[in-house]
Amino acid sequence: MRVLGLDPGLQRTGWGIVDAVGTRLSHVANGTVTTDPKASLAERLVQLAHGLRTVLADWKPEACAVEETFVNKNPTSTLKLGQARGIALYVPAEAGLIVAEYTPNHVKKSVVGVGHAAKEQIDAMVNMLLPGVKITGPDAADALAVAITHAHHLATDAALMRRAQPPARRAAP
Amino acid sequence: MRVLGLDPGLQRTGWGIVDAVGTRLSHVANGTVTTDPKASLAERLVQLAHGLRTVLADWKPEACAVEETFVNKNPTSTLKLGQARGIALYVPAEAGLIVAEYTPNHVKKSVVGVGHAAKEQIDAMVNMLLPGVKITGPDAADALAVAITHAHHLATDAALMRRAQPPARRAAP
Repeated sequence: MRVLGLDPGLQRTGWGIVDAVGTRLSHVANGTVTTDPKASLAERLVQLAHGLRTVLADWKPEACAVEETFVNKNPTSTLKLGQARGIALYVPAEAGLIVAEYTPNHVKKSVVGVGHAAKEQIDAMVNMLLPGVKITGPDAADALAVAITHAHHLATDAALMRRAQPPARRAAP
Repeated sequence: MRVLGLDPGLQRTGWGIVDAVGTRLSHVANGTVTTDPKASLAERLVQLAHGLRTVLADWKPEACAVEETFVNKNPTSTLKLGQARGIALYVPAEAGLIVAEYTPNHVKKSVVGVGHAAKEQIDAMVNMLLPGVKITGPDAADALAVAITHAHHLATDAALMRRAQPPARRAAP
């Protein structure tokens, strides 16, 4: 299962992709979609959507998760983030992917083990969980952490489903 | 010039279209795109985008304006609105339209003449400015007010440009 994680923002949206086979993870790719601050808001959202569509076309993920935006005390910033986040949710959903959402604390807990881990701890765990990964930037690192969280979640779900299945019937004697 | 106005929201996005010939306006159509509250956020954004694409395909507007979201004191509401607003800005921009933005107060001032007009005053003015209009709902009324505001703005710009042009030269005697 190939999993895409997204850490949305109007200026920079991080993306990270991992392959998950059972509980084994491997790094596929990561990067950042940036938009031109001189362009109008509507044009920037188009740039973001095109960037995300390119990622989907290049890497063909089968599942996707988006980090829940930190709700800021500054409503103007929250609105700006919301607009970018709308695009980050919409583009993969339009492409037919189911889009999961995780809070930053859930991501930290899943990757590091505690809900209030420092940025450096997350980076260190991403590096350990994805040997050989070359992280291209801070937003890409967060996006990889989201992808790892979703891959863990999907693996747990799959394991639970296997256990819930009734044992195969024996042939009647 | 056919002008589309949008009043975005996750639950209901109002749309209204007017035709402007100079300063003369006429009503074309208005309505509301709704999304299923039981669907996931990503799915609702896809529903909203599809609804707006249908409006663009059916009515072929040449210009578009979106009401600036009222920045709420509740950050969760602001985020929700932001996500819907991202789609309302993105869909017309992706279709090649230039997307203008107006604050609610600018719209009120343009349509009623004062920045703090009551809802009923706006409805009354929309009815007066667009004779024979049948407004289909409160969000559609707001969207028509946005379309009227943008049409006024475009007409003023055009008039200013005409006045700024140098007079035609006379033939030399």
